[in-house]
Amino acid sequence: MKLSTMHDLFVAQLRDIYSAEQQITKALPKLARAAANATLAEAFRSHLLETEGQIGRLETIFGILDVSSRGPKCKGMEGLLAEGADTVRAEGANEVIDAGLIADAQRVEHYEISAYGSAKALAALLGYKQIGMLLEETEVQEVATDMKLTAIALNEVNPAALGMHAAA
Amino acid sequence: MKLSTMHDLFVAQLRDIYSAEQQITKALPKLARAAANATLAEAFRSHLLETEGQIGRLETIFGILDVSSRGPKCKGMEGLLAEGADTVRAEGANEVIDAGLIADAQRVEHYEISAYGSAKALAALLGYKQIGMLLEETEVQEVATDMKLTAIALNEVNPAALGMHAAA
Repeated sequence: MKLSTMHDLFVAQLRDIYSAEQQITKALPKLARAAANATLAEAFRSHLLETEGQIGRLETIFGILDVSSRGPKCKGMEGLLAEGADTVRAEGANEVIDAGLIADAQRVEHYEISAYGSAKALAALLGYKQIGMLLEETEVQEVATDMKLTAIALNEVNPAALGMHAAA
Repeated sequence: MKLSTMHDLFVAQLRDIYSAEQQITKALPKLARAAANATLAEAFRSHLLETEGQIGRLETIFGILDVSSRGPKCKGMEGLLAEGADTVRAEGANEVIDAGLIADAQRVEHYEISAYGSAKALAALLGYKQIGMLLEETEVQEVATDMKLTAIALNEVNPAALGMHAAA
C-alpha cells in the first residue's frame, strides 16, 4: 500500500469500504434466512436494499474521482462476518441466536459508522463537498440501522430470549 | 457454539471481548512504534495501560460469574488488527500513514464500543448490576479514546498530512 498523500489515503479508505459493502450484500441474505424473529429478518432484508444504494453512491464517488473501485479485500469486514457466520451455525434457542445475530450485526454497523466517519472527514479536508454529502447520506443510514437493531433487541428479541432463559 | 440461554450468549460475548482485548494489547505497542506523531504515539501507549485495566475488569467479571475466560479467538478483532498491520507496513509519508493508523484504530474502538454496549445490555437484562457498572466503566473509556483520536486527527495529524499533499 502506498500512502504518499491524503488523496491516496482517501481512495484507499473508499476502496476498503467498497469491499466491505460488497461482502455485506453477500452476508445479509444469509442473516435474513437465519433470523427467526420476523421483524429482524425484515430489517436485514431492508438493509440489503439500502446497502445496494450505498454501493451505488460509492460508485458515483469513484466516478467523480475518476479512479477504479478495485482494492484489497477488507479484512476487518471479513472477520466481522465470519463471527456472524459462527452465530448462524450455533445450536440452541432461536431467540438467543437472534440476539447474537443482532450483536454481530451491530459490530458491522459500527465498522461502517467509523469508516464512513473517517472518509467524510477526509472528504472535508480535501474539499470534496459533493462526495462528503454522499458519504454523510450513507452514514446517517448506518446510524439509523444500528438504532433499529437496538430497538428490535430491546422490544422483541431480548424479552423473548429471556423467557427461554427462565424456562431453561 | 451453544446458545441455549441469554446467559450462554452473555458469556460468549464476554469471551469474545476478552480475546479482542488480548489481541489489542499485542498490537498497541506496534502501533505506538509506527506512529510518527508524538501525541498519537503517546495516545497508543496510554491506551495500552487502559486496556490492561479493562482486561483486569473482565477477569473480575469472569470471577463473579464463576466461568472461564477461555473462548475462540475473536475473528473480528483479528481482521481489524490485520488492517492496522497493513497500514504499519505501508510506504509513503509519515503524516499520511499516521492518519491511516488513526482510521484503523477508530474502527477498533468502534468494535469495542459496540461489543461493550451489547454486553452491558445483556448484563442489565440478566440483572447483573455490578457487572453492568464494570462494563460501563470500560465503555466510557473506549468512547473517550475514540474522541481523543478524532481530536489528534483534526488538530495535528490531518493538517500536517495535508501539507504533504500540497507539497506533492
